[in-house]
Amino acid sequence: MSSDLDLVHTFREVWAELSGIGRAPDGGYLRFAWSPAEVALRDWFHAQAASRDMPVTHDGNGNLFATWSPAAGASGAVSGRGDGNGPGGVLTGSHFDSVPHGGAFDGPLGIVSAFLAVDLLRARGFRPARPITVAAFAEEEGSRFGVACLGSRLLTGAIDPARAAELTDRDGLALGDVLGAAPAGARPDLVAGFDAYVELHVEQGRALAAPVGVASAIWPHGRWRFDVEGEGNHAGTTLMSDRRDPMLTYAFTVLAANKEARLRDAHATVGRVEVTPNATNAIPSAVRGWLDARAADEATLAALVEAVAKKATERAGRDGTGIRFTAESTTGEVRFDEGLAARLAGLLGGVPILPTGAGHDAGVLSAHLPTAMLFVRNPTGVSHAPAETAADADCAAGVEALARVLEELSSTPLVDHDEGVAK
Amino acid sequence: MSSDLDLVHTFREVWAELSGIGRAPDGGYLRFAWSPAEVALRDWFHAQAASRDMPVTHDGNGNLFATWSPAAGASGAVSGRGDGNGPGGVLTGSHFDSVPHGGAFDGPLGIVSAFLAVDLLRARGFRPARPITVAAFAEEEGSRFGVACLGSRLLTGAIDPARAAELTDRDGLALGDVLGAAPAGARPDLVAGFDAYVELHVEQGRALAAPVGVASAIWPHGRWRFDVEGEGNHAGTTLMSDRRDPMLTYAFTVLAANKEARLRDAHATVGRVEVTPNATNAIPSAVRGWLDARAADEATLAALVEAVAKKATERAGRDGTGIRFTAESTTGEVRFDEGLAARLAGLLGGVPILPTGAGHDAGVLSAHLPTAMLFVRNPTGVSHAPAETAADADCAAGVEALARVLEELSSTPLVDHDEGVAK
Repeated sequence: MSSDLDLVHTFREVWAELSGIGRAPDGGYLRFAWSPAEVALRDWFHAQAASRDMPVTHDGNGNLFATWSPAAGASGAVSGRGDGNGPGGVLTGSHFDSVPHGGAFDGPLGIVSAFLAVDLLRARGFRPARPITVAAFAEEEGSRFGVACLGSRLLTGAIDPARAAELTDRDGLALGDVLGAAPAGARPDLVAGFDAYVELHVEQGRALAAPVGVASAIWPHGRWRFDVEGEGNHAGTTLMSDRRDPMLTYAFTVLAANKEARLRDAHATVGRVEVTPNATNAIPSAVRGWLDARAADEATLAALVEAVAKKATERAGRDGTGIRFTAESTTGEVRFDEGLAARLAGLLGGVPILPTGAGHDAGVLSAHLPTAMLFVRNPTGVSHAPAETAADADCAAGVEALARVLEELSSTPLVDHDEGVAK
Repeated sequence: MSSDLDLVHTFREVWAELSGIGRAPDGGYLRFAWSPAEVALRDWFHAQAASRDMPVTHDGNGNLFATWSPAAGASGAVSGRGDGNGPGGVLTGSHFDSVPHGGAFDGPLGIVSAFLAVDLLRARGFRPARPITVAAFAEEEGSRFGVACLGSRLLTGAIDPARAAELTDRDGLALGDVLGAAPAGARPDLVAGFDAYVELHVEQGRALAAPVGVASAIWPHGRWRFDVEGEGNHAGTTLMSDRRDPMLTYAFTVLAANKEARLRDAHATVGRVEVTPNATNAIPSAVRGWLDARAADEATLAALVEAVAKKATERAGRDGTGIRFTAESTTGEVRFDEGLAARLAGLLGGVPILPTGAGHDAGVLSAHLPTAMLFVRNPTGVSHAPAETAADADCAAGVEALARVLEELSSTPLVDHDEGVAK
């Protein structure tokens, strides 16, 4: 693994091991948390860790940690600080789960790159002063239980484990049943063992012109479920003037969200809907939609959601329906550690520093640890869809960049543990 | 069964036998064609027929026929004409299947009333000159295989049985597999055995103020599937200006259909939608909707659908999406035999004659037989929903009216077989 060519080749080989897992005929991935496909990826994680003599720890929340400890034989603990001595570890990694029919790169690229970065450092004879731990976080997309970054939220105590245990998937199965027990919840013992988290991720817009970049911030964002109640009735016989059709209120809300977002240079999407009874010849009795909204700052986001809710409620009055908005998950603005971002961008030769509209486990962890993200260029800007892609050479550049970052962070003093924490 | 009170009581008792079959917790019914619930209703049909010595015939299309033959012992044939002699029979009945979470009355009321009308005639010592046959038609709602009145269309040759065999339900199961063979298709031998069809049905708007009425016509109507193709992408990172979001085109189409229908005193409904991938944080790649449209005449219906398609296509151009409309099933205007309707309304003491926006097997059969419909009052106008209802006294009045109609039609010469056929 001495030349760039080798790294591209190696990346391609390892990447191919995953490409068939959970792939749908359309080329998209169905890798929901704890589904057979995602469990196969977890098995792959265990095999990769074992082949590198990196012991794996579970945190009781579905997250996995494989650790390369500086002292040979000091295995079993997640971090050097886990045994009460030594410096805190450097955490890296990402997630395996996908949105329905999502792309191959969102998540798995960060885990694959982490293992390959370890290989690269070892091949170069590097011996870390701090442990390097590769993490696979659970249910980052929230595609199964509805709460994004569920694994990292549980680990850091950002969500109550008893509440999380009762979250249900589309089949009505509860998280507690899937795990076989309520999740463990906050593990400050584990989190305190790390002095930094660095997540490598495919960039998801068209915002990065270089092969690799560093993240500055994550836009504040959230998901609001809106329930429209009307009156089920016969599509053929019910006078238009007698109708209380929730599909009309839903459709108006979709268009209002689009318009209000454009007015504010924000993002709003309604990508999911459930209709009762969803029959061609019946006026629905109820329509449930989900609004995904994001903006550059929290005031703009609040104004956006408020404007959509106000217009939708007015329309509901005209349609004879009722509408109710419920925040399912909201995440404030994340500003990654500015000093760390600048340091890493410099280390990588002055690569771009840019914000993103996408949420990540790094955003959750940034409230507890100095945290940074590396982005790998996305040539088309497509993400959360089968066409999501990244060039092999850019992925190899990402592995190289991550290796340099891990080398730097695991061999030198880090920022103070109480500084650089996101407000 | 000599007094009105007895008939109300009897109706209530028989009706109660069915009320638990296929009932969902919301009080609506899930009685899809050939589902366990609908099969239980077919079993009930066989038991009712057997208890009345009415032999049951299958037509190879999923439709059932139970016949009361004038000559005692002449059992087994569907109609008197089936053995080459005697006058044609009188057909009555309806369907058991429901829309998802539909009401109890739409369909089963016509079958229950038919058996009770036979009881009433027998209790009064009536001996029909023509056979009286009670039918249970299959898949009238089209809720499982997408084509409304599938059973009566197959029986009359209005749909190709090979095409019908390949229709699939939401689980991908084909009709041919459900039946165990391709449907038999047109059975002119059976249809020619009848000289009239009378279907009793709950009225479905708020159009009938009397307990019982007679139908004049069915509005022309149809179902148009519309497929909107866009580009799946990330809800958080994709610039609004870069989006090709099919949900926007869908929402616009829903509102356009509503507006264009109101402008024409017509009916338009979008009650069913399927989204790919249907994830909160993904711009959909495709949205499929179904437009149910109906109008008083065919020119108005065509203009309505054309206007909706035109506006939707313009909007798709602005959204960067593509939209395609496909007619899944269309039914021209049905004018029931005017002479027969007037005769029955007179027989029943001058009850109202009224059109309906709802499709029925009677509409399909009216192209082949003199056909009439009796409506039973719907106090709320709700149909295709759990709240659909009819008063016991009105249902008893419906049984009484149907008995008088069957008595009349099975004992006197009917209109000529070639007349009174819907154009």
